[in-house]
Amino acid sequence: MNEFEIIDRITQILGCAARAECVLVGPGDDAAIVSVPPGFELAVTTDTLVAGRHFPADAPGDLVGCRAMGVNLSDLAAMGAEPSFCVVSLTAPTADIAWIEAYARGIAEYATRYGASIVGGNIARGPLAVSITAHGLIPAGERLLRSGAKAGDTVFVSGTLGVGHAALLANDLRFYRVEPRIDLGQALRRSASAAIDISDGLLADLSHICRASGVGARLTLETMPVAEGVEPETALTCGDDYELLFTASEPPDVDGPITAIGEIVKGDGVAVLDRGRVLPMDKATGYQHF
Amino acid sequence: MNEFEIIDRITQILGCAARAECVLVGPGDDAAIVSVPPGFELAVTTDTLVAGRHFPADAPGDLVGCRAMGVNLSDLAAMGAEPSFCVVSLTAPTADIAWIEAYARGIAEYATRYGASIVGGNIARGPLAVSITAHGLIPAGERLLRSGAKAGDTVFVSGTLGVGHAALLANDLRFYRVEPRIDLGQALRRSASAAIDISDGLLADLSHICRASGVGARLTLETMPVAEGVEPETALTCGDDYELLFTASEPPDVDGPITAIGEIVKGDGVAVLDRGRVLPMDKATGYQHF
Repeated sequence: MNEFEIIDRITQILGCAARAECVLVGPGDDAAIVSVPPGFELAVTTDTLVAGRHFPADAPGDLVGCRAMGVNLSDLAAMGAEPSFCVVSLTAPTADIAWIEAYARGIAEYATRYGASIVGGNIARGPLAVSITAHGLIPAGERLLRSGAKAGDTVFVSGTLGVGHAALLANDLRFYRVEPRIDLGQALRRSASAAIDISDGLLADLSHICRASGVGARLTLETMPVAEGVEPETALTCGDDYELLFTASEPPDVDGPITAIGEIVKGDGVAVLDRGRVLPMDKATGYQHF
Repeated sequence: MNEFEIIDRITQILGCAARAECVLVGPGDDAAIVSVPPGFELAVTTDTLVAGRHFPADAPGDLVGCRAMGVNLSDLAAMGAEPSFCVVSLTAPTADIAWIEAYARGIAEYATRYGASIVGGNIARGPLAVSITAHGLIPAGERLLRSGAKAGDTVFVSGTLGVGHAALLANDLRFYRVEPRIDLGQALRRSASAAIDISDGLLADLSHICRASGVGARLTLETMPVAEGVEPETALTCGDDYELLFTASEPPDVDGPITAIGEIVKGDGVAVLDRGRVLPMDKATGYQHF
Protein backbone atom coordinates (compact mmCIF):
# COMPACT_ATOMS: atom_id res chain seq x y z
CA MET A 1 0.00 0.00 0.00
CA ASN A 2 1.58 3.28 -1.06
CA GLU A 3 1.40 6.71 0.54
CA PHE A 4 -1.57 7.93 -1.49
CA GLU A 5 -3.52 4.71 -0.77
CA ILE A 6 -2.83 5.06 2.95
CA ILE A 7 -4.00 8.68 2.84
CA ASP A 8 -7.19 7.57 1.06
CA ARG A 9 -7.91 5.01 3.79
CA ILE A 10 -7.27 7.52 6.57
CA THR A 11 -9.39 10.15 4.83
CA GLN A 12 -12.27 7.67 4.52
CA ILE A 13 -12.17 6.94 8.25
CA LEU A 14 -11.85 10.61 9.19
CA GLY A 15 -14.62 11.55 6.75
CA CYS A 16 -17.07 9.93 9.16
CA ALA A 17 -15.99 12.40 11.84
CA ALA A 18 -18.10 15.47 12.56
CA ARG A 19 -18.14 17.91 9.69
CA ALA A 20 -18.31 21.40 11.15
CA GLU A 21 -20.27 24.06 9.25
CA CYS A 22 -17.14 26.19 9.00
CA VAL A 23 -15.35 23.69 6.70
CA LEU A 24 -15.60 24.93 3.09
CA VAL A 25 -12.97 22.58 1.60
CA GLY A 26 -11.88 19.49 3.53
CA PRO A 27 -8.90 17.16 3.05
CA GLY A 28 -7.48 16.48 -0.41
CA ASP A 29 -6.19 19.79 -1.74
CA ASP A 30 -2.94 21.65 -0.96
CA ALA A 31 -4.75 23.18 2.01
CA ALA A 32 -8.19 23.06 3.61
CA ILE A 33 -10.41 26.13 3.48
CA VAL A 34 -12.44 27.16 6.53
CA SER A 35 -14.52 30.15 7.51
CA VAL A 36 -14.77 31.85 10.89
CA PRO A 37 -18.27 33.19 11.60
CA PRO A 38 -18.61 36.94 12.19
CA GLY A 39 -18.30 37.82 15.86
CA PHE A 40 -16.01 34.89 16.65
CA GLU A 41 -12.28 34.57 17.24
CA LEU A 42 -10.18 31.48 16.55
CA ALA A 43 -8.06 29.70 19.19
CA VAL A 44 -5.08 27.77 17.74
CA THR A 45 -2.93 25.27 19.62
CA THR A 46 -0.54 22.46 18.77
CA ASP A 47 0.90 19.52 20.67
CA THR A 48 3.16 16.64 19.66
CA LEU A 49 3.30 13.18 21.24
CA VAL A 50 6.45 11.09 20.71
CA ALA A 51 6.44 7.29 21.15
CA GLY A 52 8.49 6.14 24.12
CA ARG A 53 8.24 9.56 25.74
CA HIS A 54 4.61 10.63 25.78
CA PHE A 55 3.13 7.17 25.33
CA PRO A 56 4.50 3.60 25.34
CA ALA A 57 6.01 2.68 21.95
CA ASP A 58 3.72 -0.37 21.71
CA ALA A 59 0.50 1.49 22.52
CA PRO A 60 -2.50 0.62 20.31
CA GLY A 61 -3.18 3.07 17.50
CA ASP A 62 -6.72 3.97 18.57
CA LEU A 63 -5.57 4.95 22.06
CA VAL A 64 -2.72 7.08 20.70
CA GLY A 65 -5.24 8.85 18.47
CA CYS A 66 -7.57 9.48 21.43
CA ARG A 67 -4.80 10.86 23.63
CA ALA A 68 -3.37 13.08 20.90
CA MET A 69 -6.81 14.61 20.28
CA GLY A 70 -7.62 14.82 24.00
CA VAL A 71 -4.53 16.76 25.04
CA ASN A 72 -4.95 19.25 22.19
CA LEU A 73 -8.66 19.75 22.86
CA SER A 74 -7.81 20.31 26.54
CA ASP A 75 -5.82 23.41 25.51
CA LEU A 76 -8.89 24.68 23.66
CA ALA A 77 -10.99 24.03 26.79
CA ALA A 78 -8.60 26.18 28.82
CA MET A 79 -9.27 29.12 26.46
CA GLY A 80 -13.06 28.70 26.65
CA ALA A 81 -13.14 27.62 22.99
CA GLU A 82 -15.58 25.34 21.19
CA PRO A 83 -13.60 22.78 19.10
CA SER A 84 -13.98 23.47 15.41
CA PHE A 85 -11.35 21.81 13.21
CA CYS A 86 -7.96 20.06 13.41
CA VAL A 87 -5.07 18.99 11.22
CA VAL A 88 -3.36 15.73 12.21
CA SER A 89 0.19 14.63 11.33
CA LEU A 90 1.60 11.17 11.79
CA THR A 91 5.13 9.88 11.33
CA ALA A 92 5.37 6.09 11.50
CA PRO A 93 8.32 3.76 10.92
CA THR A 94 6.47 1.23 8.77
CA ALA A 95 3.29 1.11 6.77
CA ASP A 96 1.45 -0.91 9.45
CA ILE A 97 -1.95 -0.20 7.96
CA ALA A 98 -3.86 -1.89 10.80
CA TRP A 99 -2.18 0.37 13.39
CA ILE A 100 -2.66 3.45 11.22
CA GLU A 101 -6.36 2.68 10.65
CA ALA A 102 -6.85 2.16 14.39
CA TYR A 103 -5.11 5.50 15.01
CA ALA A 104 -7.46 7.19 12.52
CA ARG A 105 -10.47 5.63 14.27
CA GLY A 106 -9.25 7.05 17.61
CA ILE A 107 -8.88 10.49 16.03
CA ALA A 108 -12.33 10.18 14.42
CA GLU A 109 -13.99 9.14 17.69
CA TYR A 110 -12.75 12.24 19.51
CA ALA A 111 -13.39 14.48 16.50
CA THR A 112 -17.00 13.34 16.40
CA ARG A 113 -17.54 13.51 20.14
CA TYR A 114 -16.20 17.07 20.43
CA GLY A 115 -17.41 18.43 17.09
CA ALA A 116 -13.97 19.07 15.55
CA SER A 117 -13.68 18.26 11.84
CA ILE A 118 -10.39 16.81 10.62
CA VAL A 119 -9.63 19.06 7.65
CA GLY A 120 -6.16 17.86 6.70
CA GLY A 121 -2.94 16.27 7.79
CA ASN A 122 0.30 14.69 6.80
CA ILE A 123 1.83 11.24 6.86
CA ALA A 124 5.53 10.49 6.60
CA ARG A 125 7.87 7.64 7.35
CA GLY A 126 9.89 8.27 10.50
CA PRO A 127 10.00 7.57 14.23
CA LEU A 128 6.47 7.16 15.63
CA ALA A 129 5.05 10.55 16.62
CA VAL A 130 1.75 12.41 16.31
CA SER A 131 1.37 16.16 15.97
CA ILE A 132 -2.04 17.84 15.99
CA THR A 133 -3.04 21.47 15.53
CA ALA A 134 -6.48 22.13 16.99
CA HIS A 135 -8.68 25.16 16.31
CA GLY A 136 -11.70 26.38 18.27
CA LEU A 137 -14.20 29.23 18.15
CA ILE A 138 -14.75 31.81 20.89
CA PRO A 139 -17.24 34.70 20.86
CA ALA A 140 -15.13 37.84 20.35
CA GLY A 141 -13.68 39.12 23.61
CA GLU A 142 -14.74 36.14 25.76
CA ARG A 143 -11.47 34.22 25.67
CA LEU A 144 -10.00 32.88 28.93
CA LEU A 145 -6.35 33.83 29.39
CA ARG A 146 -3.71 33.06 32.01
CA SER A 147 -3.23 36.74 32.70
CA GLY A 148 -6.43 37.89 34.40
CA ALA A 149 -6.04 36.58 37.98
CA LYS A 150 -6.43 39.26 40.71
CA ALA A 151 -5.52 39.30 44.40
CA GLY A 152 -8.56 38.12 46.33
CA ASP A 153 -9.73 35.70 43.62
CA THR A 154 -10.34 32.11 44.66
CA VAL A 155 -8.33 29.33 42.97
CA PHE A 156 -10.46 26.43 41.70
CA VAL A 157 -9.65 23.10 40.08
CA SER A 158 -12.00 20.69 38.32
CA GLY A 159 -12.14 16.93 38.87
CA THR A 160 -9.70 14.87 40.89
CA LEU A 161 -5.90 15.32 41.01
CA GLY A 162 -3.48 12.49 40.29
CA VAL A 163 -5.88 10.37 38.20
CA GLY A 164 -3.86 10.76 34.99
CA HIS A 165 -0.59 10.00 36.75
CA ALA A 166 -2.02 6.89 38.44
CA ALA A 167 -3.42 5.75 35.09
CA LEU A 168 0.02 6.22 33.50
CA LEU A 169 1.68 4.07 36.19
CA ALA A 170 -1.02 1.39 35.86
CA ASN A 171 -1.00 1.61 32.02
CA ASP A 172 -4.73 2.19 32.39
CA LEU A 173 -7.07 3.22 29.58
CA ARG A 174 -7.78 6.51 31.34
CA PHE A 175 -4.22 7.64 30.54
CA TYR A 176 -5.15 7.59 26.85
CA ARG A 177 -8.80 8.53 27.03
CA VAL A 178 -8.20 12.09 28.21
CA GLU A 179 -11.48 13.93 28.86
CA PRO A 180 -10.94 17.56 27.92
CA ARG A 181 -13.14 19.93 29.99
CA ILE A 182 -14.70 21.53 26.92
CA ASP A 183 -18.12 22.28 28.47
CA LEU A 184 -16.57 23.66 31.66
CA GLY A 185 -14.22 25.94 29.68
CA GLN A 186 -17.12 27.44 27.76
CA ALA A 187 -19.22 27.79 30.94
CA LEU A 188 -16.36 29.75 32.57
CA ARG A 189 -16.03 32.34 29.78
CA ARG A 190 -17.77 35.13 31.70
CA SER A 191 -17.00 34.07 35.26
CA ALA A 192 -13.33 33.03 35.42
CA SER A 193 -10.59 35.67 35.58
CA ALA A 194 -7.84 33.28 34.41
CA ALA A 195 -7.62 29.62 33.34
CA ILE A 196 -5.11 26.96 32.28
CA ASP A 197 -5.23 23.19 31.89
CA ILE A 198 -3.04 21.15 34.22
CA SER A 199 -0.89 19.21 31.83
CA ASP A 200 2.47 20.19 33.37
CA GLY A 201 1.30 19.68 36.97
CA LEU A 202 -0.86 21.87 39.19
CA LEU A 203 1.97 23.86 40.84
CA ALA A 204 3.77 24.54 37.56
CA ASP A 205 0.56 25.56 35.83
CA LEU A 206 -0.57 27.78 38.69
CA SER A 207 2.87 29.41 38.50
CA HIS A 208 2.18 30.14 34.82
CA ILE A 209 -1.06 31.93 35.82
CA CYS A 210 0.72 33.85 38.60
CA ARG A 211 3.55 35.01 36.32
CA ALA A 212 1.19 36.01 33.52
CA SER A 213 -1.10 37.85 35.97
CA GLY A 214 1.61 39.43 38.17
CA VAL A 215 0.27 37.87 41.36
CA GLY A 216 1.02 35.09 43.85
CA ALA A 217 -1.11 32.23 45.16
CA ARG A 218 -1.62 30.40 48.45
CA LEU A 219 -3.01 26.87 48.35
CA THR A 220 -4.35 24.77 51.21
CA LEU A 221 -3.20 21.16 50.93
CA GLU A 222 -6.12 19.73 52.90
CA THR A 223 -8.66 21.07 50.40
CA MET A 224 -7.07 19.37 47.38
CA PRO A 225 -9.32 16.83 45.63
CA VAL A 226 -6.66 14.13 45.51
CA ALA A 227 -7.32 10.67 44.03
CA GLU A 228 -7.30 7.72 46.42
CA GLY A 229 -3.87 6.16 46.75
CA VAL A 230 -2.03 9.22 45.44
CA GLU A 231 0.21 11.30 47.74
CA PRO A 232 -0.93 14.95 47.93
CA GLU A 233 2.59 16.15 46.99
CA THR A 234 2.52 13.89 43.92
CA ALA A 235 -0.90 15.19 42.94
CA LEU A 236 0.44 18.75 43.07
CA THR A 237 3.38 18.14 40.77
CA CYS A 238 2.49 15.24 38.48
CA GLY A 239 1.21 16.20 35.07
CA ASP A 240 -1.34 14.49 32.83
CA ASP A 241 -4.54 15.43 34.66
CA TYR A 242 -5.97 17.73 31.95
CA GLU A 243 -8.33 19.30 34.43
CA LEU A 244 -8.95 23.06 34.39
CA LEU A 245 -7.27 25.26 36.99
CA PHE A 246 -8.90 28.67 37.16
CA THR A 247 -9.42 31.76 39.25
CA ALA A 248 -12.66 33.66 39.89
CA SER A 249 -13.94 36.32 42.25
CA GLU A 250 -17.14 34.33 42.88
CA PRO A 251 -17.80 30.56 42.79
CA PRO A 252 -18.97 29.96 39.22
CA ASP A 253 -22.34 28.36 38.54
CA VAL A 254 -21.23 25.31 36.55
CA ASP A 255 -22.05 21.63 36.24
CA GLY A 256 -19.53 19.04 37.37
CA PRO A 257 -17.17 18.91 40.33
CA ILE A 258 -14.99 21.93 41.03
CA THR A 259 -13.11 22.54 44.26
CA ALA A 260 -11.82 25.76 45.85
CA ILE A 261 -8.15 25.04 46.72
CA GLY A 262 -6.72 28.43 47.65
CA GLU A 263 -6.56 32.11 46.86
CA ILE A 264 -4.70 34.61 44.74
CA VAL A 265 -2.57 37.07 46.74
CA LYS A 266 -0.41 40.11 46.01
CA GLY A 267 3.24 39.35 45.30
CA ASP A 268 4.52 36.35 43.40
CA GLY A 269 5.14 32.60 43.72
CA VAL A 270 2.94 29.78 44.89
CA ALA A 271 2.89 28.71 48.56
CA VAL A 272 1.24 25.52 49.76
CA LEU A 273 -0.05 25.38 53.33
CA ASP A 274 -0.49 22.08 55.15
CA ARG A 275 -2.79 22.84 58.11
CA GLY A 276 -1.34 26.35 58.39
CA ARG A 277 2.32 25.37 57.86
CA VAL A 278 4.05 26.35 54.60
CA LEU A 279 5.35 23.26 52.85
CA PRO A 280 8.99 23.38 51.71
CA MET A 281 8.07 23.54 48.02
CA ASP A 282 9.71 26.71 46.90
CA LYS A 283 10.13 25.58 43.33
CA ALA A 284 7.15 25.18 41.08
CA THR A 285 8.13 21.94 39.46
CA GLY A 286 6.34 20.24 36.69
CA TYR A 287 7.09 17.89 33.87
CA GLN A 288 9.86 19.31 31.71
CA HIS A 289 10.81 17.90 28.32
CA PHE A 290 14.49 18.96 28.52
CA MET B 1 18.61 25.05 30.21
CA ASN B 2 15.17 23.60 30.88
CA GLU B 3 12.13 23.36 28.63
CA PHE B 4 10.55 26.65 29.75
CA GLU B 5 13.87 28.51 29.32
CA ILE B 6 14.28 27.07 25.80
CA ILE B 7 10.72 28.13 24.94
CA ASP B 8 11.48 31.64 26.23
CA ARG B 9 14.56 31.89 23.97
CA ILE B 10 12.67 30.62 20.94
CA THR B 11 9.76 32.96 21.64
CA GLN B 12 12.17 35.91 21.86
CA ILE B 13 13.64 35.08 18.45
CA LEU B 14 10.24 34.48 16.88
CA GLY B 15 8.85 37.64 18.47
CA CYS B 16 10.96 39.61 15.99
CA ALA B 17 9.09 37.94 13.13
CA ALA B 18 6.28 39.75 11.38
CA ARG B 19 3.28 40.32 13.63
CA ALA B 20 0.17 40.10 11.51
CA GLU B 21 -2.79 42.31 12.39
CA CYS B 22 -4.97 39.25 12.84
CA VAL B 23 -3.02 38.03 15.91
CA LEU B 24 -4.94 38.97 19.06
CA VAL B 25 -2.98 36.76 21.50
CA GLY B 26 0.42 35.39 20.48
CA PRO B 27 2.56 32.63 22.02
CA GLY B 28 2.52 31.96 25.76
CA ASP B 29 -1.03 30.90 26.65
CA ASP B 30 -2.72 27.49 26.18
CA ALA B 31 -3.61 28.62 22.64
CA ALA B 32 -3.11 31.66 20.45
CA ILE B 33 -6.12 33.80 19.50
CA VAL B 34 -6.48 35.13 15.97
CA SER B 35 -9.18 36.89 14.01
CA VAL B 36 -10.15 36.39 10.38
CA PRO B 37 -11.27 39.64 8.71
CA PRO B 38 -14.83 39.74 7.32
CA GLY B 39 -14.94 38.67 3.69
CA PHE B 40 -11.95 36.36 3.99
CA GLU B 41 -11.56 32.58 4.24
CA LEU B 42 -8.72 30.77 5.94
CA ALA B 43 -6.45 28.22 4.22
CA VAL B 44 -4.90 25.64 6.60
CA THR B 45 -2.11 23.22 5.73
CA THR B 46 0.44 21.13 7.60
CA ASP B 47 3.68 19.43 6.65
CA THR B 48 6.25 17.49 8.67
CA LEU B 49 9.98 17.14 7.88
CA VAL B 50 11.86 14.22 9.45
CA ALA B 51 15.67 14.25 9.79
CA GLY B 52 17.40 11.69 7.58
CA ARG B 53 14.38 11.50 5.30
CA HIS B 54 13.38 15.02 4.30
CA PHE B 55 16.70 16.66 5.12
CA PRO B 56 20.18 15.40 6.12
CA ALA B 57 20.35 14.64 9.84
CA ASP B 58 23.34 17.01 10.24
CA ALA B 59 21.72 19.95 8.45
CA PRO B 60 22.17 23.35 10.12
CA GLY B 61 19.20 24.52 12.19
CA ASP B 62 18.58 27.75 10.27
CA LEU B 63 18.31 25.89 6.96
CA VAL B 64 15.91 23.31 8.41
CA GLY B 65 13.76 26.18 9.68
CA CYS B 66 13.79 27.85 6.24
CA ARG B 67 12.84 24.66 4.41
CA ALA B 68 10.08 23.74 6.88
CA MET B 69 8.52 27.19 6.46
CA GLY B 70 9.09 27.24 2.69
CA VAL B 71 7.35 23.95 1.92
CA ASN B 72 4.33 24.87 4.06
CA LEU B 73 4.02 28.35 2.57
CA SER B 74 4.22 26.75 -0.89
CA ASP B 75 0.96 24.93 -0.13
CA LEU B 76 -0.63 28.27 0.77
CA ALA B 77 0.67 29.71 -2.52
CA ALA B 78 -1.04 26.90 -4.42
CA MET B 79 -4.40 27.95 -2.88
CA GLY B 80 -3.89 31.63 -3.73
CA ALA B 81 -3.58 32.48 -0.03
CA GLU B 82 -1.68 35.29 1.67
CA PRO B 83 0.37 33.85 4.57
CA SER B 84 -1.04 34.95 7.89
CA PHE B 85 0.09 32.85 10.87
CA CYS B 86 1.80 29.54 11.70
CA VAL B 87 2.37 27.19 14.60
CA VAL B 88 5.73 25.40 14.67
CA SER B 89 6.58 22.14 16.45
CA LEU B 90 10.05 20.76 16.99
CA THR B 91 11.16 17.44 18.40
CA ALA B 92 14.90 17.27 19.04
CA PRO B 93 17.02 14.56 20.67
CA THR B 94 19.10 16.88 22.87
CA ALA B 95 18.83 20.39 24.19
CA ASP B 96 21.39 21.72 21.65
CA ILE B 97 20.42 25.33 22.23
CA ALA B 98 22.69 26.68 19.47
CA TRP B 99 20.99 24.47 16.87
CA ILE B 100 17.52 25.28 18.23
CA GLU B 101 18.22 29.03 18.19
CA ALA B 102 19.49 28.78 14.60
CA TYR B 103 16.33 26.86 13.69
CA ALA B 104 14.20 29.60 15.27
CA ARG B 105 16.13 32.25 13.29
CA GLY B 106 15.41 30.35 10.05
CA ILE B 107 11.71 30.20 10.95
CA ALA B 108 11.73 33.91 11.85
CA GLU B 109 13.45 34.90 8.60
CA TYR B 110 10.76 33.23 6.47
CA ALA B 111 7.96 34.40 8.77
CA THR B 112 9.12 37.99 8.38
CA ARG B 113 9.70 37.76 4.63
CA TYR B 114 6.28 36.29 3.92
CA GLY B 115 4.28 38.09 6.60
CA ALA B 116 3.30 35.02 8.64
CA SER B 117 3.31 35.51 12.41
CA ILE B 118 4.44 32.58 14.54
CA VAL B 119 1.63 32.38 17.09
CA GLY B 120 2.57 29.21 18.94
CA GLY B 121 4.30 25.87 18.86
CA ASN B 122 5.59 22.95 20.78
CA ILE B 123 8.97 21.54 21.74
CA ALA B 124 9.60 17.98 22.89
CA ARG B 125 12.50 15.61 23.22
CA GLY B 126 12.51 13.00 20.49
CA PRO B 127 13.96 12.14 17.08
CA LEU B 128 14.68 15.33 15.09
CA ALA B 129 11.58 16.43 13.19
CA VAL B 130 9.75 19.66 12.44
CA SER B 131 6.01 20.00 11.94
CA ILE B 132 4.42 23.29 10.89
CA THR B 133 0.79 24.26 10.39
CA ALA B 134 0.49 27.32 8.16
CA HIS B 135 -2.59 29.53 7.76
CA GLY B 136 -3.34 32.06 5.03
CA LEU B 137 -6.12 34.44 4.06
CA ILE B 138 -8.08 34.36 0.80
CA PRO B 139 -10.89 36.71 -0.26
CA ALA B 140 -14.09 34.67 0.03
CA GLY B 141 -14.71 32.55 -3.05
CA GLU B 142 -11.34 33.26 -4.74
CA ARG B 143 -9.52 30.12 -3.60
CA LEU B 144 -7.56 28.06 -6.14
CA LEU B 145 -8.45 24.38 -6.04
CA ARG B 146 -7.19 21.30 -7.87
CA SER B 147 -10.66 20.58 -9.17
CA GLY B 148 -11.40 23.34 -11.69
CA ALA B 149 -9.40 22.26 -14.79
CA LYS B 150 -11.46 22.01 -18.01
CA ALA B 151 -10.76 20.38 -21.36
CA GLY B 152 -9.18 23.00 -23.59
CA ASP B 153 -7.34 24.77 -20.75
CA THR B 154 -3.60 25.25 -21.15
CA VAL B 155 -1.24 23.71 -18.56
CA PHE B 156 1.37 26.14 -17.20
CA VAL B 157 4.28 25.76 -14.81
CA SER B 158 6.30 28.48 -13.10
CA GLY B 159 10.11 28.62 -12.93
CA THR B 160 12.50 25.85 -13.95
CA LEU B 161 12.03 22.13 -13.37
CA GLY B 162 14.63 19.97 -11.64
CA VAL B 163 16.29 22.79 -9.68
CA GLY B 164 15.23 21.46 -6.29
CA HIS B 165 16.29 17.93 -7.15
CA ALA B 166 19.71 19.07 -8.43
CA ALA B 167 20.16 21.14 -5.27
CA LEU B 168 19.32 18.09 -3.14
CA LEU B 169 21.95 15.98 -4.97
CA ALA B 170 24.53 18.76 -4.64
CA ASN B 171 23.53 19.49 -1.00
CA ASP B 172 23.10 23.05 -2.22
CA LEU B 173 21.56 25.90 -0.20
CA ARG B 174 18.70 26.14 -2.70
CA PHE B 175 17.39 22.79 -1.43
CA TYR B 176 16.70 24.43 1.92
CA ARG B 177 15.87 27.96 0.83
CA VAL B 178 12.62 27.03 -0.91
CA GLU B 179 11.00 30.06 -2.56
CA PRO B 180 7.23 29.62 -2.29
CA ARG B 181 5.38 31.30 -5.18
CA ILE B 182 3.20 33.40 -2.90
CA ASP B 183 2.84 36.40 -5.20
CA LEU B 184 2.11 34.20 -8.23
CA GLY B 185 -0.56 32.24 -6.34
CA GLN B 186 -2.38 35.44 -5.37
CA ALA B 187 -2.05 36.82 -8.91
CA LEU B 188 -3.68 33.65 -10.29
CA ARG B 189 -6.79 33.81 -8.07
CA ARG B 190 -9.09 35.04 -10.81
CA SER B 191 -7.34 33.62 -13.88
CA ALA B 192 -6.33 30.01 -13.08
CA SER B 193 -8.93 27.23 -13.21
CA ALA B 194 -6.85 24.84 -11.04
CA ALA B 195 -3.51 24.95 -9.24
CA ILE B 196 -1.13 22.78 -7.19
CA ASP B 197 2.46 23.09 -6.08
CA ILE B 198 4.90 20.53 -7.46
CA SER B 199 6.28 18.96 -4.34
CA ASP B 200 5.60 15.33 -5.33
CA GLY B 201 6.85 15.77 -8.92
CA LEU B 202 5.18 17.36 -11.94
CA LEU B 203 3.53 14.22 -13.33
CA ALA B 204 2.18 13.10 -9.96
CA ASP B 205 0.87 16.55 -9.16
CA LEU B 206 -0.71 17.02 -12.59
CA SER B 207 -2.40 13.64 -12.03
CA HIS B 208 -3.84 15.03 -8.80
CA ILE B 209 -5.34 17.95 -10.77
CA CYS B 210 -6.69 15.60 -13.45
CA ARG B 211 -8.32 13.24 -10.93
CA ALA B 212 -9.82 16.11 -8.93
CA SER B 213 -11.11 17.79 -12.12
CA GLY B 214 -12.25 14.66 -13.97
CA VAL B 215 -10.06 15.38 -17.00
CA GLY B 216 -6.84 14.22 -18.68
CA ALA B 217 -3.73 16.10 -19.79
CA ARG B 218 -1.26 15.99 -22.68
CA LEU B 219 2.18 17.48 -22.14
CA THR B 220 4.84 18.27 -24.74
CA LEU B 221 8.30 17.31 -23.49
CA GLU B 222 10.14 19.80 -25.71
CA THR B 223 8.36 22.76 -24.10
CA MET B 224 9.37 21.86 -20.54
CA PRO B 225 11.52 24.49 -18.81
CA VAL B 226 14.12 21.97 -17.61
CA ALA B 227 17.21 23.03 -15.62
CA GLU B 228 20.59 22.59 -17.32
CA GLY B 229 22.13 19.22 -16.64
CA VAL B 230 18.83 17.60 -15.63
CA GLU B 231 17.24 14.89 -17.79
CA PRO B 232 13.72 15.85 -18.92
CA GLU B 233 12.33 12.56 -17.57
CA THR B 234 13.90 13.32 -14.18
CA ALA B 235 12.49 16.83 -14.20
CA LEU B 236 9.00 15.39 -14.76
CA THR B 237 9.10 12.99 -11.82
CA CYS B 238 11.49 14.41 -9.23
CA GLY B 239 9.85 16.33 -6.42
CA ASP B 240 11.10 19.32 -4.44
CA ASP B 241 10.60 22.06 -7.03
CA TYR B 242 7.85 23.95 -5.17
CA GLU B 243 6.83 25.71 -8.35
CA LEU B 244 3.15 26.22 -9.20
CA LEU B 245 1.50 24.00 -11.79
CA PHE B 246 -1.79 25.47 -12.98
CA THR B 247 -4.38 25.46 -15.71
CA ALA B 248 -6.05 28.45 -17.36
CA SER B 249 -8.17 29.15 -20.41
CA GLU B 250 -6.04 32.22 -21.28
CA PRO B 251 -2.36 32.99 -20.57
CA PRO B 252 -2.50 34.87 -17.25
CA ASP B 253 -1.01 38.35 -16.95
CA VAL B 254 1.54 37.75 -14.19
CA ASP B 255 5.11 38.72 -13.32
CA GLY B 256 7.84 36.09 -13.39
CA PRO B 257 8.52 33.18 -15.71
CA ILE B 258 5.69 30.83 -16.56
CA THR B 259 5.72 28.32 -19.40
CA ALA B 260 2.89 26.63 -21.30
CA ILE B 261 3.71 22.91 -21.26
CA GLY B 262 0.56 21.21 -22.51
CA GLU B 263 -3.20 21.10 -22.50
CA ILE B 264 -6.12 19.65 -20.58
CA VAL B 265 -8.13 17.08 -22.56
CA LYS B 266 -11.28 15.04 -22.04
CA GLY B 267 -10.74 11.63 -20.46
CA ASP B 268 -8.21 10.85 -17.78
CA GLY B 269 -4.50 10.26 -17.21
CA VAL B 270 -1.45 12.25 -18.22
CA ALA B 271 0.34 11.59 -21.53
CA VAL B 272 3.74 13.05 -22.36
CA LEU B 273 4.62 13.62 -26.05
CA ASP B 274 8.23 13.78 -27.21
CA ARG B 275 8.10 15.40 -30.68
CA GLY B 276 4.71 13.84 -31.33
CA ARG B 277 5.50 10.39 -29.91
CA VAL B 278 3.85 9.33 -26.62
CA LEU B 279 6.52 8.50 -24.06
CA PRO B 280 6.12 5.15 -22.27
CA MET B 281 5.24 6.78 -18.94
CA ASP B 282 1.88 5.32 -18.16
CA LYS B 283 2.24 5.66 -14.43
CA ALA B 284 2.23 9.06 -12.82
CA THR B 285 5.05 8.49 -10.39
CA GLY B 286 6.17 10.87 -7.76
CA TYR B 287 7.86 10.78 -4.43
CA GLN B 288 6.00 8.46 -2.07
CA HIS B 289 6.67 8.20 1.65
CA PHE B 290 5.63 4.54 1.96
